Amino acid sequence: MIVADLPLVKLINPDASFPSLFVLHLSNETENRFTKQFVKEIMQALDIVEEKLDQLDTEQASRGGALISTSTGKFYSNGLAIEAAMKEGDSFYIPYLQMLARLLTFRIPTVAAINGHAFAGGCMFAFAHDYRVMRADRGWIAMNEVDIGIPLIPGMAAIVKAKISHANHLRDCLLTGHRFKSSDALSAGIIDRAVPQDKLLDTALEYARTLAPKASGLTQKLHLIKAEMYRETVILLLSGGTTPGGFMSKL
Amino acid sequence: MIVADLPLVKLINPDASFPSLFVLHLSNETENRFTKQFVKEIMQALDIVEEKLDQLDTEQASRGGALISTSTGKFYSNGLAIEAAMKEGDSFYIPYLQMLARLLTFRIPTVAAINGHAFAGGCMFAFAHDYRVMRADRGWIAMNEVDIGIPLIPGMAAIVKAKISHANHLRDCLLTGHRFKSSDALSAGIIDRAVPQDKLLDTALEYARTLAPKASGLTQKLHLIKAEMYRETVILLLSGGTTPGGFMSKL
Amino acid sequence: MIVADLPLVKLINPDASFPSLFVLHLSNETENRFTKQFVKEIMQALDIVEEKLDQLDTEQASRGGALISTSTGKFYSNGLAIEAAMKEGDSFYIPYLQMLARLLTFRIPTVAAINGHAFAGGCMFAFAHDYRVMRADRGWIAMNEVDIGIPLIPGMAAIVKAKISHANHLRDCLLTGHRFKSSDALSAGIIDRAVPQDKLLDTALEYARTLAPKASGLTQKLHLIKAEMYRETVILLLSGGTTPGGFMSKL
Repeated sequence: MIVADLPLVKLINPDASFPSLFVLHLSNETENRFTKQFVKEIMQALDIVEEKLDQLDTEQASRGGALISTSTGKFYSNGLAIEAAMKEGDSFYIPYLQMLARLLTFRIPTVAAINGHAFAGGCMFAFAHDYRVMRADRGWIAMNEVDIGIPLIPGMAAIVKAKISHANHLRDCLLTGHRFKSSDALSAGIIDRAVPQDKLLDTALEYARTLAPKASGLTQKLHLIKAEMYRETVILLLSGGTTPGGFMSKL
Repeated sequence: MIVADLPLVKLINPDASFPSLFVLHLSNETENRFTKQFVKEIMQALDIVEEKLDQLDTEQASRGGALISTSTGKFYSNGLAIEAAMKEGDSFYIPYLQMLARLLTFRIPTVAAINGHAFAGGCMFAFAHDYRVMRADRGWIAMNEVDIGIPLIPGMAAIVKAKISHANHLRDCLLTGHRFKSSDALSAGIIDRAVPQDKLLDTALEYARTLAPKASGLTQKLHLIKAEMYRETVILLLSGGTTPGGFMSKL
Repeated sequence: MIVADLPLVKLINPDASFPSLFVLHLSNETENRFTKQFVKEIMQALDIVEEKLDQLDTEQASRGGALISTSTGKFYSNGLAIEAAMKEGDSFYIPYLQMLARLLTFRIPTVAAINGHAFAGGCMFAFAHDYRVMRADRGWIAMNEVDIGIPLIPGMAAIVKAKISHANHLRDCLLTGHRFKSSDALSAGIIDRAVPQDKLLDTALEYARTLAPKASGLTQKLHLIKAEMYRETVILLLSGGTTPGGFMSKL
């Protein structure tokens, strides 16, 4: 059932008997590049999710809930609409970072069903989810800023650091723009599962159904646990500024 | 030899020829739930350990020292006495967090000999030690706050983050309350050894004897190294406040 | 070709056709112990590297560049000249920490070719590089401060934490002074490759040539990415003070 049909984002409830299960379908042209409007619609979709959660009765709320994001085609997301972002500056970057922080601490479990490439801004969007399932045969996860020649904003480096545990993988990701194919991503612990394309959404739904009860009650419990778990990341996303290396002038 | 026989805690020197080797035996009923009084007595026992260390002559001090904590029965510790803790608020939480910080930076090596379940507050207590040896056949280590529906205080999330290195294990621990049995805990690097129950204390003593010389001189050296090693954790334990997610209102 | 022939440091361009490839040859007696003068000359050599980079034409700059550090003999570096350091205090420690921060965020990729022991101050110097290649048959990497009885300055603990990902390896390194031989260092992810002594420089050069294009343009791009990647470490190196555990008195 389509819960919200926005121009660039569809919000779907894939199972009428489980009204707190949501699929956020990214549909901003073929590449899902992040623009002001795309970010705004994702935030609207998250608002709708929270409204729906708040409307559930106690019995339904006891089942918890979960959110999947995915798309179709070659790209999960090919990153920021970089020319627009550079022109718009903070009026783009600040809402984009707020969206990452909101997703990172969302009050129900979240699963990225990575259907294709997740580059840069799209990689960080995937990292903002609790779990990542990836199409096995094609697609790369990568932070290719180093190859494009763009330094990283504090909150952007922070969200990558929160999700890539090993210093060497982090280095390969940020300093060389290493393209993790699904098997690399799995062995580096960047994704949780690699599956055939036709099993991607089903696998994500399995995760979602299994994890949903952890949000039982649909309170702010998981939001607050995630907030403390990613405390330093949240601080940098929401108040780290948008100047790469800007902190150094204050030392 | 019993060094101190407090109502809820026994402090034992297991080897008269090595007076700076201590076993802190937790004995607060069957579950070792943390209450104000239990925390107070553990702090008293640590005071006594430090007094004894300060009284040793130079030759004895050159051998260093070590502290083991353990208990008997089904539980290492089943966590906080949660109803009392919630009623008492900061007057419980602040001393509890101070105890974790003190143990985390204790000036001799510390080993948790985990004889049974270590849940939530008991898990964090085990994490405050330098090394963890666990009974292999039974017992879980888990942060089950998510299942109880309690968010995490800043210092609590911080001590778990300091000891669970991999983002995925950390997530499974904090967001799903994953119960690590000894084999899981070992492969996640959360414990150092899993041994049969009847070898638990002997194994912990082996660690203690091996590590003791690292505190040679019994100065504040190891305390200060641990303080810098766990700097961010110590800061959050001692001055992070007791409001989960409270930092967000300041961003 | 020798680019700079300072008393304690040689700066070499090993390939005239690739003028932005540099080898920093440490040659402060047999142990490369860090003194004020040695730190000063390393900083001078880094100044010269940056001057040379700035003088390249656009085509040369498009190839990027890289820096290797190495030495000959039994030691890569045996650490600080500790008696001098303790006498000089901040006038030694502050420039030493600044050097680590500069190398950690250097604007071209850096590779430590660890020809022998890298102890304490020498271990941290190796950790300040992006990649580490080590002689396989001999040599240890270790932070032996705990055995010498010296606590760690905030920035020193921070740089070790930035490069040793797993809490247990970090603990073994800092609390027990564990001496990582090349195979240990490799399995702990502390080094990237262990090779026979006679292949050490060639392997480092392979890394350098492969990584050089990541600095294409020779802008501050990589400097800024590294700055955000190691943000907390840079902050502690440059403004963390020189008193071990000093932060605790402010809590």
